[in-house]
Order: sequence, then C-alpha cells, then structure tokens
Amino acid sequence: MTSLQKLLEAIAPPPGDVAGGAQAHLDSLTKPPGSLGRLEDLALRLAILRGGAPRLARPVIFTFAADHGVVAEGVSAYPQAVTAQMVENFVRGGAAVNVLARQAGARVVVADFGVATPLPPAAAVARCAVGPGTANIARGPAMTREQAVSAVEAGARLAGQELAAGADLLGTGEMGIGNTTAASAITAALTGAAEGAVTGRGTGVDDPTWRRKVDVVRRALEVNRPDPRDGLDVLARVGGFEIAGLVGVIRAGAARATPVALDGFISTAAALVAVTLAPEARHALFASHRSTEPGHAVALAHLGLTPYLDLEMRLGEGTGAALFIHLARAATLVYTEMATFKSAGVDGPH
Amino acid sequence: MTSLQKLLEAIAPPPGDVAGGAQAHLDSLTKPPGSLGRLEDLALRLAILRGGAPRLARPVIFTFAADHGVVAEGVSAYPQAVTAQMVENFVRGGAAVNVLARQAGARVVVADFGVATPLPPAAAVARCAVGPGTANIARGPAMTREQAVSAVEAGARLAGQELAAGADLLGTGEMGIGNTTAASAITAALTGAAEGAVTGRGTGVDDPTWRRKVDVVRRALEVNRPDPRDGLDVLARVGGFEIAGLVGVIRAGAARATPVALDGFISTAAALVAVTLAPEARHALFASHRSTEPGHAVALAHLGLTPYLDLEMRLGEGTGAALFIHLARAATLVYTEMATFKSAGVDGPH
Repeated sequence: MTSLQKLLEAIAPPPGDVAGGAQAHLDSLTKPPGSLGRLEDLALRLAILRGGAPRLARPVIFTFAADHGVVAEGVSAYPQAVTAQMVENFVRGGAAVNVLARQAGARVVVADFGVATPLPPAAAVARCAVGPGTANIARGPAMTREQAVSAVEAGARLAGQELAAGADLLGTGEMGIGNTTAASAITAALTGAAEGAVTGRGTGVDDPTWRRKVDVVRRALEVNRPDPRDGLDVLARVGGFEIAGLVGVIRAGAARATPVALDGFISTAAALVAVTLAPEARHALFASHRSTEPGHAVALAHLGLTPYLDLEMRLGEGTGAALFIHLARAATLVYTEMATFKSAGVDGPH
Repeated sequence: MTSLQKLLEAIAPPPGDVAGGAQAHLDSLTKPPGSLGRLEDLALRLAILRGGAPRLARPVIFTFAADHGVVAEGVSAYPQAVTAQMVENFVRGGAAVNVLARQAGARVVVADFGVATPLPPAAAVARCAVGPGTANIARGPAMTREQAVSAVEAGARLAGQELAAGADLLGTGEMGIGNTTAASAITAALTGAAEGAVTGRGTGVDDPTWRRKVDVVRRALEVNRPDPRDGLDVLARVGGFEIAGLVGVIRAGAARATPVALDGFISTAAALVAVTLAPEARHALFASHRSTEPGHAVALAHLGLTPYLDLEMRLGEGTGAALFIHLARAATLVYTEMATFKSAGVDGPH
C-alpha cells in the first residue's frame, strides 16, 4: 500500500455522537441560543471534528510555491521571476502572509514545489521540487501521474511533521505566477462549469489577456481531456506542483481530524481534487473567505462550503487562512471560556 | 458653551491630503494593487483618519448597560433582571464580549447607565446611571432632554478618560433587555423606514411577540413624535440611557479622530443619533459587522457604511466590535510591516 493509499483510508467521517453534546454546551452559554451566528456553527464543527471541546494553540500555514509552464501563453500580469522573488520575500517575512500569520500566531511553512528560477541555496525553504515548473497545460499534461503522486506525498509529509509537532489547524496557501489558470482548469474539469465562469483576472490582467486566459483554459481541457472521476488525473494533466502539495496537506489534516482552513481559489481547487480522491475529507475543510476570483464561488458551492469572510481579497499566499484563524480561535474561546447561565446565575427566557 | 457643544465643534473632516500618500504606500507593497480588497480600504481609512500610518495598540470596548421601561409591553424573550445579571457576568469576565475582547487584546469598560435591578455595591462598574431605566416609550418619552444630554456627556467622559490613557480604537457595545425596541424606534425615526422593516426578533422572540413589538414601535413614534432633524429629541423620546452613553463615546472618538468600531443594531442606532448631531462624525465610524436584525442594514445604509463581517450575529455587548479589532489590526500591520516591491527586490507587472 502506498502512503497515499494509507492516507485515503485514514480519512473517516467525524463521530456523530459528539454533535448533540456540543450543541447543548453552546446553548448553555450566557447568550441567546444561536446569537453568535456562524461563530457558533464554526465552534460546533470544530468540536465535532475534534470529538470534544475545540482547541487552537498551534496553527500552521503552508505556503507552497511552484511555477507554471502555461505562463508561455501570456496569461499573467507579472513575470515568472516573481514566484522566486516572492519565495525570498516569504523567507524574510515581508509578504502579506507573513504579516497576517504573525498577527494570528501562526507558523508559516514555505516550500519550493518547483520554482523555475533557482533559489539561493541558503534560503530557509522546504525543498520539495518535483521539477522546474510544470509543462504548458495548453499543449499537454502539466506533469506525469508519478510527479503528481510525489508532490501530494511531499505535501502530506510536511503536514505530517507539523501535526506530529502539535499543529492543530492547517492553513493552505500558495504562490505561483500562472496558477489561477491551472486552478480554473481544475475547477472547470471537476465541477463541469464553463471555462468563462471559472476564469478571473488573477493578479489583475486586462480584458484581452482575460479572453486569452479563458481560451487557454479551454485548450488545456481539450488537449488533456482530464477524467473528472479521477482526481489524480485532473491534477496531473492541468494542475500544478504546489496545488498537488496542498492536496497532500488537506489529506493529512483530514486523516488526523485536524481542521484545514482553505485559503482562496487555488487552495480550493486543491480541495476539489482532495475531495474527489476521498469525499470524507470534506468534514475537515473550512472555507476561510470568498475570493473575488469567480471560480472560487463555483468551487466552494461544489464543495458545499460557505466562506466565513468576504473581504474581496484575491492575493492567495494563505492570507485568507491567516485571517480566518482569528475567527476559529474566537469560536474555540467562546466554547471553552464563556460562563453558562447556571454558573453565572443568569435567568433564561420567560 | 456646554461640553456637548464643545465636542460637536471638535468633530472635523479628516485631512484629504493624506489619502494620496497612503494609497501610494499601499500600492508599493508586495502584492498586486488592491488584492487585499477591503483590508486595503480599511487601512486607507485608518490612515486618513489618523493623518499618517495607522496604529492599533490599545483598543477599548465600551459595554454600557441600562434598562428599558418598554419591557412592560412584553417585547423581550428575557426578564428585565437579566440586564443586571449580565452586568455581573461582564464584571466577572464570563460573557461573550469578555472572551472576544481578551482574545483581541481589548480592555472592556462596563458602565451602568441605568440598570433597574440594584447592582452589588462592590461591582467594578462605572456608575453613570441617569435613572433606574427609561420610562415606557409606548406611553411617553423615554427620558428628559436633560437626562439625554447628561448620559451623552457621561459616555463622552468615560471615552475621554480612555483616550487620555492612550486608547486608539473605541468599540461600542451594550446590554439592556428591551433595547432593540428602542433601537428600532430610533432607526425608524431617523431613517424614515417603516416600523416593520426595522423591527427584528432581538434575543429571539416568537411571531406574536414580534407583531406586538412592531406595534409598540409604531405607538412609540405616534405618542412621542420625535423630530428627525433633532438627534437629541429622538434620543430623549424613544432612546435609552446606554444608547445615549454610546452617542457620547462616538462623539468623543470622532472629536479626537480616533476610529470608532460600531457593534450591531443598537450601537448603530446610537451612530444615527451622533451623525444627526454632527455629520462629520461619520468619518470616524467603522461598521464592524452586519447583524441579523433587519434594522441594522437599514441604519448602515443610511450611514453609508458597509460592514466588514457578516457572521449572522445578533448578540450585541460589543462582540462584533471585538472581532473587528482583528481586521483593523491586520489592516494596520499590512500598512506598517509589509515589504515594498523595491525593498524586497520583487518585479512589478510586465
């Protein structure tokens, strides 16, 4: 049995018998029942997943980077070199995800899953490169199936190390010039949505580039004919190395009943793949926020997830996941620190 | 000149010349321009208000409590004694606002603006009571104009003390069985909306109680005929002591160009009064979240404010303001800690 198969088999639905007790506890707290709205839903889901009172002491955000051969089609506003430059920015702590993760008390694990531009040998980056970027999906498969499996396993391995060290929430994040094109192709392939409905402006492309990008996604699907019943096939044909790595993170979190905070569009494309491989993984998924990328809403609807934040963000890196940590911690603290009507001597309704 | 008049005159629009520089700074940071969405809008507004880089080191939440004579009409699901019981819960730190404020690093200032049930003499509560709860607005004015002025000034005084001690964000919050009825009457009076459109279920009343509540709001407006051009008149006739106190907090914050994070429906009713008295106060207002109370959306639209969070909350106390602090801090840290394209050696667009 491969380690990927082992992970798949470890993903089970959470125990249902916890839900009643957790809901009763939430209703015993000094507030009208349900008056904290989605914070209570979040607390309930975290309690069910954990099988008892939720805890959030050690969140970790995985920011995986890789390049995409599809940039040869002119689908991005930024040059490919920016992927490597941003990895160095992550390592120095100057990127948005660093700032927001520090605020949230989260560790950021930066990994190279296949950055085209050589990184400085001393850079404090987990080395998981499967190759110097994917091939151009407009002309053929992004990677081989073996490379896809290898990247998923590398992501799961990194997540497993953090889980072993006590991580209790896994956030997903990514960097890769061109990766919204791959995410659009994955989302179209796995949800059946039209290319135009799942293709957005990424880092901010103009109208002609957007039209070209839609055409590239269409060609990627025509050339590669990914099989929507086979998540690995979709991942290998139109995905990306960093997306594969995030599939591994999601799968490792789900296998350990640890909440996985999805970031934006690219992370959610990884979740589509993960859930195609193991539907029960869905129980561990939390949609941090809704990105302005149109494909994100399509992917979230397909997964049946409602995002907690809607701040019109579209940066990726794990920035939405970092902001979500505050809400997950709030839900956890409400569950564990609030007084009950009984303990506080507060009357209930008439 | 009364202290209220002095406060009014101190409320000025923020300097316009800061906006260009702040926007240029945000656009120099290592992210596609605008890709952090509303977090960038928030950073920009905070920078404009402060006249330079935003800072958030000492947030304070004001949780003001008072009782409402209108509970005699049977408009609430909970008995009046709960107001005092919850004040004791706030003092002991067991309420939702305590938990969420601790998480956000915010101090909670609890004040009695007119709780009907006597509080323990030793309770660590600011004593600002104007009377033992308002009169029943379904039968006459809630309070005299002098009481309204007195409560506004008491709220402003408490806020002034915190500002003098370094508070750099003021959150509003409240507790008062029956106070959604007063907030509905204020909102109808100052926005012109129909009673049924601004009256919700408060702590969770059933259908017959909701219909009675709408009728009570209608009667309160018919009996009192508040003058919508005169915020103090509306406040005195159909308001509440804690709402008046929050008007003072808002006005003190606006006068010192310090951001005021509005909580939910009742806090936003106070903002309607504050802006009627001094329209420029609006520049200091931030809508933390959108409550499920229907009148909240009406009041926010009237103020031209878009909430940052929409978590289907309806608890009050300052819980939405507490959650918003994380976003305000995130916006502040993005502004002050992120690397620039130049400093990080990251290429811009093609």
